[in-house]
Amino acid sequence: QNAALRRGVLVMRHGERVDQVFGKSWLQQCLTADGKYYRTDLNFPSSLPRRKDSMKQFECDPPLSCCGIFQSRLIGEALLDQEVTVSSVYSSPALRCLQTAQHVLQGLKLNQKVKIRVEPGLFEWTKWEASRAIPNFLTVAELVEASYDIDTSYRGNFPLSSLVPSESYEDYGKRDGAAAPLPPLFAFPGVPGVILIVGHGSSLASLTRALTGLPSRDSGDFAQMVRKIPSLGMCFCEELKDENKWQMVNPPVKTLTHGANAAFNWRNTIMED
Amino acid sequence: QNAALRRGVLVMRHGERVDQVFGKSWLQQCLTADGKYYRTDLNFPSSLPRRKDSMKQFECDPPLSCCGIFQSRLIGEALLDQEVTVSSVYSSPALRCLQTAQHVLQGLKLNQKVKIRVEPGLFEWTKWEASRAIPNFLTVAELVEASYDIDTSYRGNFPLSSLVPSESYEDYGKRDGAAAPLPPLFAFPGVPGVILIVGHGSSLASLTRALTGLPSRDSGDFAQMVRKIPSLGMCFCEELKDENKWQMVNPPVKTLTHGANAAFNWRNTIMED
Repeated sequence: QNAALRRGVLVMRHGERVDQVFGKSWLQQCLTADGKYYRTDLNFPSSLPRRKDSMKQFECDPPLSCCGIFQSRLIGEALLDQEVTVSSVYSSPALRCLQTAQHVLQGLKLNQKVKIRVEPGLFEWTKWEASRAIPNFLTVAELVEASYDIDTSYRGNFPLSSLVPSESYEDYGKRDGAAAPLPPLFAFPGVPGVILIVGHGSSLASLTRALTGLPSRDSGDFAQMVRKIPSLGMCFCEELKDENKWQMVNPPVKTLTHGANAAFNWRNTIMED
Repeated sequence: QNAALRRGVLVMRHGERVDQVFGKSWLQQCLTADGKYYRTDLNFPSSLPRRKDSMKQFECDPPLSCCGIFQSRLIGEALLDQEVTVSSVYSSPALRCLQTAQHVLQGLKLNQKVKIRVEPGLFEWTKWEASRAIPNFLTVAELVEASYDIDTSYRGNFPLSSLVPSESYEDYGKRDGAAAPLPPLFAFPGVPGVILIVGHGSSLASLTRALTGLPSRDSGDFAQMVRKIPSLGMCFCEELKDENKWQMVNPPVKTLTHGANAAFNWRNTIMED
């Protein structure tokens, strides 16, 4: 069957986030005395979106690194190369996920054609938030001002106000796991094609197991599983139409493996005697 | 002094090479039974330049990975952002260096304006070549056919035929080190600006120490120093015109630090029970 006609759900994790490389205090490394952002390493993004509240809020909702943008764009280009038809895109409200969705769509040359639906229900298991609070996400208005292709008419299936800090595994399962399987959560369009869901490591594990009818894992196994999921890790579920069932199959594109790059201090390395 | 008017020499190491990520047998992973190239991971380049001799020759002269292209482009864009005027570019004949030069120039929006001069004298210390032979580099004709912006009129200062396999450290020094300091090797143009030299880890250490008058290191220290140089590691030498001397200073752009990304096996990670 032609990949373009397949009805499928592609769930992917966001790309490399700045705090993954530069630590929790990444923002302090990049602020001048009068609070202006500048990059101290070329892997920091060249600028940050404008926000009405404090820049400080980016600490709980960090952006992609330049490498994360590269990863996202590359996956989008590979999907285009495989002629995968993405008919709709849902993203976690986390900035790193929205940016991943945006750059995947750019790679697919679908930006401005397919708009991103911000779905609060896709946010990470809140127990894993270091701040023990729900981050102040950028508003739809702020995202649009920063040139993100957002579907402004979409109302989240799970409202932002219902996200609870440090939620139990059971509560997380109610919005993202076995108790909330995909078909009712996401409106499948009448046309064939792939629904792209950009979320967190947790999304890959919970959404796809729920959709294919696998039982949810206990929370310890779940945490261990999620830790193994790299940037742009992907799971793909395909519909078996006659059986009204979904199965997990190989994603339409390959995995992405690359090495790390260390900071370089010419003074200590080249000059020392 | 304005960076654009500075007379300087910027020496950089090439970007991430495929064999660094996928090992020496990378090409075997990417060939069909009838010898056609395809990528088995998205970090492999989408295609390889055409060459008259065997594809097998790429094993001794590997290309950049997609991540290496990203790194090179990012550095070029950062140099443009800092308004660095690159007046000429010299590259090692190794494919990874030529590709790095090409993508840095694209980031600088200087491709087609500044042509790459292929300088065999910039090749790595040949003792470090695993094959114990000089690789069959792509010819200038093959590079031009593959759309590389090559200065076809340039004749290497150190002819390719003079490169000796497994050369001694002393012989290496004669073409790249203290015995061959930069000014006679590279023709400084009459105009101010930066000469970009794309080479290997060894180039950073030997060329810049020679230019600034530092003594060369013994071969053990040299090897240890070179091992610390990351992809796109840079050294910058600036002219002190009144004193007719060169000094090593901070490069015009920051370093590039990013994390690794692991391959992802959805079957073992998500499906296992």
